[in-house]
Amino acid sequence: MHAKKAYAWLLEYFRETARYDSIRQLLDWDQRTFLPKDGHAHRAAQLATLAGVLSKRNTDPKIGEMLGEVENSKMVRDPLADEAVNAREWRRSYTRACKIPEQLAVELTRSASEGESAWQESKPRNDWDGFLPHLERIVDLKREEASLLASGDEFYDALIEEFEPGERAERIDVLFKKLLEPLHELLDKILGAEKRPDTSILRGNIPVSAQEAFITHILACIGFDRARGRMDLSAHPFTSAIGPGDIRITTRYDENFFSSALFSAIHETGHALYGHGLPEKHWGTPRGSAVSMAIHESQSLMWENMVARSSGFWKRFYSEAQKHFHHLEAISPDDFYLAINEVRPDLIRTEADEVTYNLHIIMRFELERALIRREIEPDDLPEAWNEKMSEYLGIVPPDFASGVMQDVHWSGGAIGYFPSYALGNIYAAQLYFKAAEDMGSLDQVFESGNFQDFVIWLRRKIHSQGSRYLPRDLIKAATGEELNPDYLVRYLTSKYGELYAID
Amino acid sequence: MHAKKAYAWLLEYFRETARYDSIRQLLDWDQRTFLPKDGHAHRAAQLATLAGVLSKRNTDPKIGEMLGEVENSKMVRDPLADEAVNAREWRRSYTRACKIPEQLAVELTRSASEGESAWQESKPRNDWDGFLPHLERIVDLKREEASLLASGDEFYDALIEEFEPGERAERIDVLFKKLLEPLHELLDKILGAEKRPDTSILRGNIPVSAQEAFITHILACIGFDRARGRMDLSAHPFTSAIGPGDIRITTRYDENFFSSALFSAIHETGHALYGHGLPEKHWGTPRGSAVSMAIHESQSLMWENMVARSSGFWKRFYSEAQKHFHHLEAISPDDFYLAINEVRPDLIRTEADEVTYNLHIIMRFELERALIRREIEPDDLPEAWNEKMSEYLGIVPPDFASGVMQDVHWSGGAIGYFPSYALGNIYAAQLYFKAAEDMGSLDQVFESGNFQDFVIWLRRKIHSQGSRYLPRDLIKAATGEELNPDYLVRYLTSKYGELYAID
Repeated sequence: MHAKKAYAWLLEYFRETARYDSIRQLLDWDQRTFLPKDGHAHRAAQLATLAGVLSKRNTDPKIGEMLGEVENSKMVRDPLADEAVNAREWRRSYTRACKIPEQLAVELTRSASEGESAWQESKPRNDWDGFLPHLERIVDLKREEASLLASGDEFYDALIEEFEPGERAERIDVLFKKLLEPLHELLDKILGAEKRPDTSILRGNIPVSAQEAFITHILACIGFDRARGRMDLSAHPFTSAIGPGDIRITTRYDENFFSSALFSAIHETGHALYGHGLPEKHWGTPRGSAVSMAIHESQSLMWENMVARSSGFWKRFYSEAQKHFHHLEAISPDDFYLAINEVRPDLIRTEADEVTYNLHIIMRFELERALIRREIEPDDLPEAWNEKMSEYLGIVPPDFASGVMQDVHWSGGAIGYFPSYALGNIYAAQLYFKAAEDMGSLDQVFESGNFQDFVIWLRRKIHSQGSRYLPRDLIKAATGEELNPDYLVRYLTSKYGELYAID
Repeated sequence: MHAKKAYAWLLEYFRETARYDSIRQLLDWDQRTFLPKDGHAHRAAQLATLAGVLSKRNTDPKIGEMLGEVENSKMVRDPLADEAVNAREWRRSYTRACKIPEQLAVELTRSASEGESAWQESKPRNDWDGFLPHLERIVDLKREEASLLASGDEFYDALIEEFEPGERAERIDVLFKKLLEPLHELLDKILGAEKRPDTSILRGNIPVSAQEAFITHILACIGFDRARGRMDLSAHPFTSAIGPGDIRITTRYDENFFSSALFSAIHETGHALYGHGLPEKHWGTPRGSAVSMAIHESQSLMWENMVARSSGFWKRFYSEAQKHFHHLEAISPDDFYLAINEVRPDLIRTEADEVTYNLHIIMRFELERALIRREIEPDDLPEAWNEKMSEYLGIVPPDFASGVMQDVHWSGGAIGYFPSYALGNIYAAQLYFKAAEDMGSLDQVFESGNFQDFVIWLRRKIHSQGSRYLPRDLIKAATGEELNPDYLVRYLTSKYGELYAID
């Protein structure tokens, strides 16, 4: 009886915390979409107020007391029961929060915010020297944080843990090493193939209103419910889960290139569908929350690439696209399909194709890990970056802005995040093959326009599970198999082998 | 020294409270502009969380202790010093907050929210009987609140006090009674005049984009700074002061009638200019806050009517309006000016003209006062309403929806608010004549397009004062004279006498 009361207290306590966090989400969303220029200083003050509340709530000693009652009771006997799942994740986050002294937490927040501002100013000026002191400060603090959080020798694990519960650098390294050779082999074949996409056919003067109309139609077809979300504009597309029934995505338009807005909107819709599929009655608890960034990215990357860059998808939608974008009328479906799947080593991660994207991630993972291991220092990064680029992608950036300074992540303290992207691709491919086993050819499913069945499948296997399983257990429960990078290799080899008529 | 420390504590404490309140403002703004349909339940939960924080903060006993230190010190010797002003208003709000038991505060919030929902459902169905129980509950609770807050026999005073610090029902009654006869006399003359506006000339198919372009231009001319605010759409136009540098207005468009969006946008801009003119270094304290709803309405109503419905204003802008709204090309400036100033008794307050508007307010004031005095009960309201309408405006509503149920105020517990509108007109007219004394003919100022000087005048006299003076003292400081309703009579008689060629 005591344990039940303690659990009820924890449930209400964490739900209230989640409400504060969802308020923070709205402030953040507004800051990136509609906030007037002169409102930023006050917004920072509002966010600091909420950060203070959240930090105090996350380390309240009463959490520890109450958790103890629950953990010593029958309630957690079945580790997959809702109570056990919540207790497990509450314990994880509480333990982590308590290990960080308040002073360090404040420093981390401030340095991350200052670092991101410094990056925003320095990058356009290609000013590595101006940015470096900020990066050094961040790396120092993240090393300190990692050392306080770590339970083993690999301090980097503690940073990964924030985004990927239960994941380890060594295990990621094994997965990534398995990808390297087949990816390079495939890339060489593609670059040597006779078939060459002509991406100029995607360009043309395309009014934003036409793009918006087409995107709105596509999102409705794949299941983005406007009663439960919105789409707005922002400089960098993102998804914001403000609450049940309120998940918002953003996109940005290029008047000369419709596909950037389209694919990024579909990517964000993948995140939103995950959010909408989480069990609403468990809102505000781990059982009702997304389990990791890799699982989140598995959803967004699957929709962006495996669905929206598939041949079936465009068999369904190409004639409609031609009606919206008149310059496509003269372009054959095959040429279009090849163009949206161009593989070409590029300096910029966010513009990379499905094949090279993972190489961008793997090199960032290796660099981050070396940084936290103190094998390299921040001022070694430009050289190390260029070496890796040359080794993995065969190109070298001409400046810092398109090289080591291209991503926002490190500047804002998000060290340990990058691996989630490639892990997301690995998870996605495994789910893709399992879904095909259950539903038949997905290309045919997409061509038929029956996205609902696919969403229902994902909902059942992934979304509705919340944080019931850790990510690796989730994929095992969903597919009956350990996480296996071979599926990604198989997916890419098959798709691009056919597209580029290799062998 | 002790008092200084106490004051510093109060300053930081109330600023933090103001930050929470500004977060609440953003949630409220979003709810009325962009919130997806299915996000309302969660938004209510977020708002309840913030209401809990605010209520707890507003009644913290430490406020009383600290205030005592300040009040017994030299800091408050000069009642117009910032410290004294803040202490005075902190004391007022703290005393009020402490008089309301938590249970009643919760009940009031819930009943107001439920009452507003019930009103939203019942009004379109003309369902007075369905709405009545909600109204009865609200009136009961407001009577209880008023009795707890009241310091004299007139409990209604305590409700007015929430919107008009220092104001009293009896003094308002004196002002309003002075208006009644001249207003009726003027109205009779106007209705008997030969000149008749033809408002059909204002109608025409007017694309929203053309309206938006014109409104954006006008607002820029009168000084609405987009770096410090935004304009969005909402069902009912409103202004939201989210923070310094972030004050947002809304409007709504009618495709057949451009003037509703235009005048409501200018009305809200009046509120926004007040907000932007408050002293930013005092943000989050009474010294930096608007002093009352009547002063707020004096600003919005002045811009909407005395400025934007003036002949000078349209001498400035009519040719531009004709370029945006082609159907005006065949209409003479005189006919246009007469049409936007049509005086006609209407059932609906929000559609009333400058002359009859005050009559709508006076009857609501009298009904509210009778309700709180228990001279009438909620179920007497429809009959009482129709009697007053007949007496003051000579028309009787054919149904509840266009009669006693037309306004949202009572349903949401805002009893005591209505008088602020007509008080606002009285304040505005007195300021208008004083400004003309200082600046010369305002009609000529508006025709010259020099709105900046007028804004600066208002800023100096009103905006920059914050809550330094109570409203009646503010008008005395600004104009050198007690609040005097004769100015409003003079303004209306002069403007409409000329317009309708009376006498």
